[in-house]
Amino acid sequence: MEVKLFDTTLRDGAQTEGISFSLEDKLKIAKLLDELGMHYIEGGWPGSNPKDIEFFKAIKKVPLKNAKIVAFSSTRRPNVAVEDDKNIATLLAAETPAVAIFGKCWDFHVTHALRTTLPENLAMIKDTVAYAKGAGKVVIFDAEHFFDGYKNNPQYALKCLQAAEEAGADVLCLCDTNGTMLAYQAQKIINEVKPKVKTALGIHEHNDSACAVSVTGMAVHCGVTHVQGTINGYGERCGNADFCAIIPILKLKAGIDCVSDKQLQKLTEISRHIAEIANLPQSAHQPFVGRSAFSHKGGIHVSAVSKHPGTYEHIKPESVGNERRVTVSELSGISNLLVKAKEYKVDLKKGSEEAKELIKILKNMEHQGYSFEEGEASFELLLKRTLGLIKPFFTLDDFIIETHKEGDQPPVVTAHVKLKVAGKLKEATGTGDGPINAIDNALRKVLEDIYPQIKSVKLTDYKVRVLDSTAGTAAKVRVIISSADETRSWGTVGVSTNVIEASWLALVDSLEYKLIG
Amino acid sequence: MEVKLFDTTLRDGAQTEGISFSLEDKLKIAKLLDELGMHYIEGGWPGSNPKDIEFFKAIKKVPLKNAKIVAFSSTRRPNVAVEDDKNIATLLAAETPAVAIFGKCWDFHVTHALRTTLPENLAMIKDTVAYAKGAGKVVIFDAEHFFDGYKNNPQYALKCLQAAEEAGADVLCLCDTNGTMLAYQAQKIINEVKPKVKTALGIHEHNDSACAVSVTGMAVHCGVTHVQGTINGYGERCGNADFCAIIPILKLKAGIDCVSDKQLQKLTEISRHIAEIANLPQSAHQPFVGRSAFSHKGGIHVSAVSKHPGTYEHIKPESVGNERRVTVSELSGISNLLVKAKEYKVDLKKGSEEAKELIKILKNMEHQGYSFEEGEASFELLLKRTLGLIKPFFTLDDFIIETHKEGDQPPVVTAHVKLKVAGKLKEATGTGDGPINAIDNALRKVLEDIYPQIKSVKLTDYKVRVLDSTAGTAAKVRVIISSADETRSWGTVGVSTNVIEASWLALVDSLEYKLIG
Repeated sequence: MEVKLFDTTLRDGAQTEGISFSLEDKLKIAKLLDELGMHYIEGGWPGSNPKDIEFFKAIKKVPLKNAKIVAFSSTRRPNVAVEDDKNIATLLAAETPAVAIFGKCWDFHVTHALRTTLPENLAMIKDTVAYAKGAGKVVIFDAEHFFDGYKNNPQYALKCLQAAEEAGADVLCLCDTNGTMLAYQAQKIINEVKPKVKTALGIHEHNDSACAVSVTGMAVHCGVTHVQGTINGYGERCGNADFCAIIPILKLKAGIDCVSDKQLQKLTEISRHIAEIANLPQSAHQPFVGRSAFSHKGGIHVSAVSKHPGTYEHIKPESVGNERRVTVSELSGISNLLVKAKEYKVDLKKGSEEAKELIKILKNMEHQGYSFEEGEASFELLLKRTLGLIKPFFTLDDFIIETHKEGDQPPVVTAHVKLKVAGKLKEATGTGDGPINAIDNALRKVLEDIYPQIKSVKLTDYKVRVLDSTAGTAAKVRVIISSADETRSWGTVGVSTNVIEASWLALVDSLEYKLIG
Repeated sequence: MEVKLFDTTLRDGAQTEGISFSLEDKLKIAKLLDELGMHYIEGGWPGSNPKDIEFFKAIKKVPLKNAKIVAFSSTRRPNVAVEDDKNIATLLAAETPAVAIFGKCWDFHVTHALRTTLPENLAMIKDTVAYAKGAGKVVIFDAEHFFDGYKNNPQYALKCLQAAEEAGADVLCLCDTNGTMLAYQAQKIINEVKPKVKTALGIHEHNDSACAVSVTGMAVHCGVTHVQGTINGYGERCGNADFCAIIPILKLKAGIDCVSDKQLQKLTEISRHIAEIANLPQSAHQPFVGRSAFSHKGGIHVSAVSKHPGTYEHIKPESVGNERRVTVSELSGISNLLVKAKEYKVDLKKGSEEAKELIKILKNMEHQGYSFEEGEASFELLLKRTLGLIKPFFTLDDFIIETHKEGDQPPVVTAHVKLKVAGKLKEATGTGDGPINAIDNALRKVLEDIYPQIKSVKLTDYKVRVLDSTAGTAAKVRVIISSADETRSWGTVGVSTNVIEASWLALVDSLEYKLIG
């Protein structure tokens, strides 16, 4: 069985609260989607958004390996000839090989939102699909509100599909626009609809009932061969069906070759890259691609997984480009700590005084708000410092940071830092965009003379998490800094009620980790 | 049909990466779960975690309206008499009315993780269930890895269920421990298993395939009457089945009276309260209870929803205690802006110069990284300032913040602020836990004399979001401050590459919003 993947990250996904893609963002994402093996990439609604017109112009110059670009539009307006409808003219002007045309299939919507008659709506569907087919397009008919419409008036919902079919649509995509469907409800309706049309069926799910991925899987099980979704499940309200789950489900669980093994192995990387472009943190718990999707914390699981990964993993993490993680935390007990020590090539014996001491220190730090899951380099430093395996490369004498703001002017920040390095007192002054950037600059000025290798350390990510946010501006914060040099990347963490102190602790760890490496 | 809700937020949910509940937290959560109408609350595994023993002691003194407390344990160990097993003794010592006993149902797990024989595992199940029944407990048998086991060796998986049934178990709960199941697969297996046992069946789902809620709904559709899950879908890896979706699905879509209408209306509040206790931000996109679950951004949706909410909402937001939101953003266009203006009782005409000017300013601010979705008070101030409806209550002359750290000592922070208020220059010095707390204190010192009403303003939340985190410590940040007085709460926002500047902007808006109110 062949299933076509139709991505709408750039159109429906762009409706997510918090997302605002630039033209450059959209082009980058389109390339990633093509790399992943999407068959269709819906780029936007040219009739509704001028930025989308720019995208369709620009994407023509981008060579794509797999995907057809799709432009989206409603049917013609009521009581207007299709050739006189500006929206439809703009749609065709996008010059894409395929178009998605949405038409309403819920009688209530036709009369109460569109405010037209039921027969006129059928004519709108028919005219628009036929006109686009006449212009040589692949036409996907998005049957908007199909399921709600079918529940309310099955005859009319079917007539809408049949109108599109008679006009030559290539796909009839059943849309659950409000995200209302459960798997067994969709199963019943699709099994009723399928014998009544000859055209390929599609599915377009929203996640308002937390069932979008599952209903999509059920639809394919019932013979649907065209699947719409978005990367990371972006989309308005609760999002669309998440391709990061749908693709591995189709490929690994339903045995459908919708992408190649190699493309599937890029899934995690592409999910994270697009999350970065969207500037929304990827949920650690996101199925298949999240950082915690294959992480093991409880003692029993860790011990079983180390014997046989299949015992607690439903698929091989490598197959989707993800990895197994054993996390260090309060619940983990001694066995996880020993696993980590072994990984760092540190000799730590079960039941030893050192191990007990470390557990005590760890519990205390976790109580303060430390979490090493994203700051593992700080954990390794803590372990090695506690066991006396490393000595500090520098110690702070003092620093002063001054932030001065006059009227509406941006603040001016100066940081002065004094360190003991290699037995000598050294100092420097730095400026910067904010207090943390200024102290970072000052610290590097002092250290680079003596430790030139830190010049290659780049801070690649800086995150602030307010821990007890109900304390207002006196809240405790956890700062996580990600760093990289030419060959490695690492994360460090600092916690304090003072964001500058927390950042300082994570900064110092970042540089010390480089120096021990 | 009657369905019993079995909550495991305190046991399986506590395995979530990033969660660490204190005893106090667990007691608070248990009370909230009871209020929501849970029939069973699993409190922990006394044999594995000493903190859980404390919980079972303490919860006895808490009067509960609905829920039975449950203690969790594995079956007895291989080749040990059940009355000699310390784990089982500890389980009964918890003195709960009900116990959940998990036993392995996957032959591969029995031989490769437990490392015992298949008949011995059956004896372990039978002995342990019978012993707990003999002690007068309600016994839920958690058939661990039931679905994986059934796929591999259906006869043996069924034998495990039958062993528990013969020993008197009250519920046979089918566990999808690795989160592997799709809805149609679960349907097939449950339909095969159901006729072969007489005891009530339960379902325990994990979300590794993004199908946990849907499979749970399917299981109930197939006749399962006991449902396990967690609030907000907490749980290790990708989490457990989310009760915040399951409860409204059962109640509103499957017509099963598992909680009362009033209890259902508490769902959003309880979800957010438990998220606060867990100190994990609730996802805005969480189905049913998220802030964005009923938010409308796109122009077409907003115009339809304002006519008939049913057009784009699958359930009434009030039924789960949530609310409809119209959000302001770049994609919204003029119609959303007009809706907001009307809400603020501001006269703004479509097509007017003021409206065009506002759209221009808004687009520019969004480009800088502003987002008013959580900082709506700043949006209202912007609108009213731009239209000349309010004048500033004070202006900044200048401020200086100094942060001084010596050696290992915590930094000392001083802020000095000079303002023009009511035509006069006023100044004050404040100290604090960090630079933002210090400037907040100094600012209030100056203002409280002249505007005593700001004494009632409490900052209830403070969030920092790094926008372009790849710029490291020079990254742009968005600060969101939530404030409240005796009767209202509001959110304000500031954006800058300097966290102090961004906080200052949000702080000023917070106080100005109070002053215009």
